[in-house]
Amino acid sequence: MNVLIVGLGLIGGSYAKGLTKKGYQVYGVDNNLETIEYAKNEGIIIDGGLLPAAFIPNVELIVICLYPNDVIPFIEENLHLFKDGQVITDVCGIKKSICYDATVLLKKAYFVGSHPMAGREKVGLKYADENIFKGTNFLLCPVENTNEKAVNVVSKMAYDLGFKKVHKISPEFHDEMIAYTSQLTHAIAVSLVNANQNDEVSKFIGDSYRDLTRIAMINESLWSELFVENKEALNQQIDSFINELENLKSALKSDNLDKLKEIFISSKKKREVM
Amino acid sequence: MNVLIVGLGLIGGSYAKGLTKKGYQVYGVDNNLETIEYAKNEGIIIDGGLLPAAFIPNVELIVICLYPNDVIPFIEENLHLFKDGQVITDVCGIKKSICYDATVLLKKAYFVGSHPMAGREKVGLKYADENIFKGTNFLLCPVENTNEKAVNVVSKMAYDLGFKKVHKISPEFHDEMIAYTSQLTHAIAVSLVNANQNDEVSKFIGDSYRDLTRIAMINESLWSELFVENKEALNQQIDSFINELENLKSALKSDNLDKLKEIFISSKKKREVM
Repeated sequence: MNVLIVGLGLIGGSYAKGLTKKGYQVYGVDNNLETIEYAKNEGIIIDGGLLPAAFIPNVELIVICLYPNDVIPFIEENLHLFKDGQVITDVCGIKKSICYDATVLLKKAYFVGSHPMAGREKVGLKYADENIFKGTNFLLCPVENTNEKAVNVVSKMAYDLGFKKVHKISPEFHDEMIAYTSQLTHAIAVSLVNANQNDEVSKFIGDSYRDLTRIAMINESLWSELFVENKEALNQQIDSFINELENLKSALKSDNLDKLKEIFISSKKKREVM
Repeated sequence: MNVLIVGLGLIGGSYAKGLTKKGYQVYGVDNNLETIEYAKNEGIIIDGGLLPAAFIPNVELIVICLYPNDVIPFIEENLHLFKDGQVITDVCGIKKSICYDATVLLKKAYFVGSHPMAGREKVGLKYADENIFKGTNFLLCPVENTNEKAVNVVSKMAYDLGFKKVHKISPEFHDEMIAYTSQLTHAIAVSLVNANQNDEVSKFIGDSYRDLTRIAMINESLWSELFVENKEALNQQIDSFINELENLKSALKSDNLDKLKEIFISSKKKREVM
């Protein structure tokens, strides 16, 4: 299958590497010519360039690996190039603001929004690694009238890339749950690190602090877009999390050991089930 | 050197294993006879029993590996057994409420409070593993008049166990910083897990959520004591963390991308320095 990767960053580059290894004919478009040359020289793509017009009409599958706010503008700018029956997907961590607009715009080309639940605290093609997808979840967000064959093409691509499980869910449910498992966790890590005022903190760091703050080394351009695009759901999750902390605080204030144990037993049981 | 481990749980057992391997003559006291038999049969200790009286007078170093609320009562009950010049330490994650009282009680035996910054989400001797200390921090909390030779004995023991670095700090500073790096992180993990109301959450879990919630599988008896004994410092840390979250929320509510980026760049820089 011929596939075009739009944007050869960490995720786009990892897709390109993984799909090339699986026998896909992979092409690439990027706004940096050096990146294209590197990808060609390393055998990550067969061919590529700065201009989508040279590649869009010639492939069966297009994966738009751009930042959230750039996906719809990219489709609009290149609308005349997409062909009937072509399958188009993206990799964004938010889905509601993309899936519906993209589906309406593309008309007879098939858009199927998706979200690979993998990443690294690094940016750019040189950190691309197809192994980051191994064992992780792939979320597919078809909407009403999404073409079933197109869903299968994207699903097959995900399994070819090594994702452990493909889940089909609505864009609304996706954004609600991602606000909790992904965006809230990043908000927490960032806030935890920023709450520190002491230079000697490293003496007191153990595994738990290291684990909780690794993702505080965040890509600020990407995550500010993800947060703002899903702000209602994220703010709700932050509030419900703060409620739990306040609950714990009030048990502490009243020296209520039994209440504290109850809170801890609840979290232990819930976490074990996951 | 002859050493007595009081309490052969996960930490006490790991000390016993590590010190035995380093050539210390290790004895053990525990309130469970099966645990003692197991430790003897596995060569983790030379000898042991239920009664401290049979062992305390015959060793140079005693490591009290009990829960925080049991340390001072243990010293009080066995006060007549300690000898002048003996070195006694503990392993508790809080220090202010232990170091001063223990030092006063023990008089001519030397108490040096310490905190091995390592652990596991498991309890009991069968999970004991001396490798958990490798590369971690060991915190020593001498107070005014703490004997310098005794400090050196405990410090040497820590390096013999494989700790990467021994830091000497006051009990007050210890408790303040631990409220941030250790207790707040556990409060966060617990609250994050408890904030979830949805059974389908596992479909949406990535590395970040897994990392942030591992420690939510918490030992409720130990941690409820640690939290209550350090509640002022912990509540202050929870408040300052919530302030950071509210800061982020207000940037979100006003779609302030620049402010969000500023917050993220700050956390990235701070985390990189650590």
